[in-house]
Amino acid sequence: MNWSERDKKHIWHPFTHLKTAVDPIRITKAEGLYLYDDKGSKIMDAISSWWVNLHGHSHPYISKKVSEQLFSFEHIPFADFTHQPAIELAERLLGHLPNNQSKIFYSDNGSTAVEVALKMTLQYWHNKGEPKNTFIALENAYHGDTFGGMSVGARNVFNSAFENQLFNVAHIPIPTKENLEQIKEVIGQWKENHSIAGFIFEPLVQGAAGMMMYDGETLDELIAFCKQNEIITIADEVMTGFGRTGKFFATDHLNNKPDIIGLSKGLTGGYLPLGVTSCAQFIYDAYISDDKTKTFFHGHSYTANATACAAALASLDLMEKRETLDQIQMIEKEHLSFLKEIKDHKACKDIRVKGTILAIELKTEGETHYLNTISEKINSYFLNKGILLRPLGNVFYVLPPYCITKDELQYIYKNIKEFLNL
Amino acid sequence: MNWSERDKKHIWHPFTHLKTAVDPIRITKAEGLYLYDDKGSKIMDAISSWWVNLHGHSHPYISKKVSEQLFSFEHIPFADFTHQPAIELAERLLGHLPNNQSKIFYSDNGSTAVEVALKMTLQYWHNKGEPKNTFIALENAYHGDTFGGMSVGARNVFNSAFENQLFNVAHIPIPTKENLEQIKEVIGQWKENHSIAGFIFEPLVQGAAGMMMYDGETLDELIAFCKQNEIITIADEVMTGFGRTGKFFATDHLNNKPDIIGLSKGLTGGYLPLGVTSCAQFIYDAYISDDKTKTFFHGHSYTANATACAAALASLDLMEKRETLDQIQMIEKEHLSFLKEIKDHKACKDIRVKGTILAIELKTEGETHYLNTISEKINSYFLNKGILLRPLGNVFYVLPPYCITKDELQYIYKNIKEFLNL
Repeated sequence: MNWSERDKKHIWHPFTHLKTAVDPIRITKAEGLYLYDDKGSKIMDAISSWWVNLHGHSHPYISKKVSEQLFSFEHIPFADFTHQPAIELAERLLGHLPNNQSKIFYSDNGSTAVEVALKMTLQYWHNKGEPKNTFIALENAYHGDTFGGMSVGARNVFNSAFENQLFNVAHIPIPTKENLEQIKEVIGQWKENHSIAGFIFEPLVQGAAGMMMYDGETLDELIAFCKQNEIITIADEVMTGFGRTGKFFATDHLNNKPDIIGLSKGLTGGYLPLGVTSCAQFIYDAYISDDKTKTFFHGHSYTANATACAAALASLDLMEKRETLDQIQMIEKEHLSFLKEIKDHKACKDIRVKGTILAIELKTEGETHYLNTISEKINSYFLNKGILLRPLGNVFYVLPPYCITKDELQYIYKNIKEFLNL
Repeated sequence: MNWSERDKKHIWHPFTHLKTAVDPIRITKAEGLYLYDDKGSKIMDAISSWWVNLHGHSHPYISKKVSEQLFSFEHIPFADFTHQPAIELAERLLGHLPNNQSKIFYSDNGSTAVEVALKMTLQYWHNKGEPKNTFIALENAYHGDTFGGMSVGARNVFNSAFENQLFNVAHIPIPTKENLEQIKEVIGQWKENHSIAGFIFEPLVQGAAGMMMYDGETLDELIAFCKQNEIITIADEVMTGFGRTGKFFATDHLNNKPDIIGLSKGLTGGYLPLGVTSCAQFIYDAYISDDKTKTFFHGHSYTANATACAAALASLDLMEKRETLDQIQMIEKEHLSFLKEIKDHKACKDIRVKGTILAIELKTEGETHYLNTISEKINSYFLNKGILLRPLGNVFYVLPPYCITKDELQYIYKNIKEFLNL
């Protein structure tokens, strides 16, 4: 059997339509911006390997730091024990997170970072003796594929087979200047009938929904309103963190800071799975009690895995360099110039930029949707040009590692223009 | 600030009672069976760092293999792409798994391996147009801390703050020769009123419940009964896999093989988070359709992380050596001798052995329970002797890496005897 046959015989790939899936491309090497396949072709990783990679692949500095950790200790348990990489990472993350964030809870990925946030919120109210059970979430939200994450996500094709197992959530539209007063009114009404525990949102950019971008100012007002109404606010920065929106965190665009923040994806620079849920001191304080049942009984075997923490620390070293911040600004500037150039293109329904993310929503017969069949056409067109731009239905986007050059961005833009002019 | 103060100021540790927690021990090195703290003391890791470590810490062979992977490619996306470590790992795992297992689905940890198993089952019925929504699970079960995992777990102090968010599950007692007919009758009744999708269980040993061990033959009969009744069977081998019960997988003790199996913990030899859910071909086949909504829409950013797959392959290399199998047998033999020696000890309510797991349930005033206050006493007693034996309430257990020697086991037994004679 060749590699493709071996893959097909033994592996079930994620988010893959089994009937129409083409043979997966086998990668044998990755370096900087590029993936190399087993036929010697190179592919520009313009979506940062599903939004995780920050500084390019197989980065010599991160790989070296991670290797060193492996030969010192790879992993130890994290109850009753601690280690320097976890402590330093917590301190440095808190240095970048909003000032109201006080404690770091580690887990393994974005879904678990969200599940921890939801559980922290519910048990906060439980521990205070004021049980509250309803979450507010945004329409079109995506917060991961575990049952808690799916519950606060939009109800759609991703989870329709599991609707009987999802807990009820109150969904509100993306807040805008126009609908904000109405949203406040609805939340006010819900508060009378339900006990609202928290409000979870992807700040500024809803990734899986199709890189939908929305106004920070209105979100800011809504967070302030939640705080006045004793609703815990949770920012899911799994995708938006680590420079993606032009600032270190998307919440840096806001004046009112969320109570809980979830991180993953870019956290280890795209190396290893690791999740973080940070919270304000008042959340943590509700768990300090003589009553042992008020303990937060959550943990994963690999919580605060030392190897993953070492990757995250090395990635932060690079992230904090002047050159990286300059690169983020350069990418945003180039994206905005390109936006200006093509914004009235007849093939496009909308083109939008936030920080290092450029998203193009195509006009199609079908509506904007993950299952829009144009996605396969987009995917294969750009792969043929040596660019990985796996779309979300009829929305495709450029979300590159920060090591990309102006010329490489221009190469992508040139190919996008040619595609739009087809 | 010293390290303890820095830890306390910034980190929220898992499963930790904040009010009474002592300063965590800071580990600066780990090698083989031993953890080394920042005061130069060494601690025998007799619980394999929460049941994950197989071959000892910082194993030169695994660390070398993982390092090599880091400099080749650390991580690439796993939809539309594939890589040699993931393919080889799938093939080799299927070589060890029961013959009815056909496909490997990757995720990040034990909780996600379970969530994937539950979702595969629900959507299997959904895709066939026969929606079934109820799971059967064992009393005292533990299947992880995400909402799906908690739902099929026992309802207890671990999840009482979240009971309104958990979906309904039908719990049955551990099957025994005495109650098996009654259990079958109850399931038969449920089948009339509910649509039962699947039955999930930890085969032979329920870990977090307190290393509760039960008869494989009765479980075998129950699995056969489920198959006759079109109930999908799911073995959660997150803890029991990779030699823990004396055979490669706990399901190797059974004649009737489960349809779906979840793996994690020992999968990477204790190095890195990685989850696997394997399934029989008929499950996979229910997802092959022209209808794109029948796709399994599940994935995590780091699905099939190449670095973690490299660790798992290196760990398998060691696992497949004659010496490792000999060590597993040696540990079981020593455990059984020690069991014989102390089985009538007045301090013990029960002593049990399954493969490399020795569990001692202490007689206490309080009942057998995770929050039994004797746990702190046990923990600190053995830590003072340089042995990590973090208990589950009044149950403590020896579950060592396979590199342990007879002398080291004898040292642990000697200290256990002294503790029991206090």
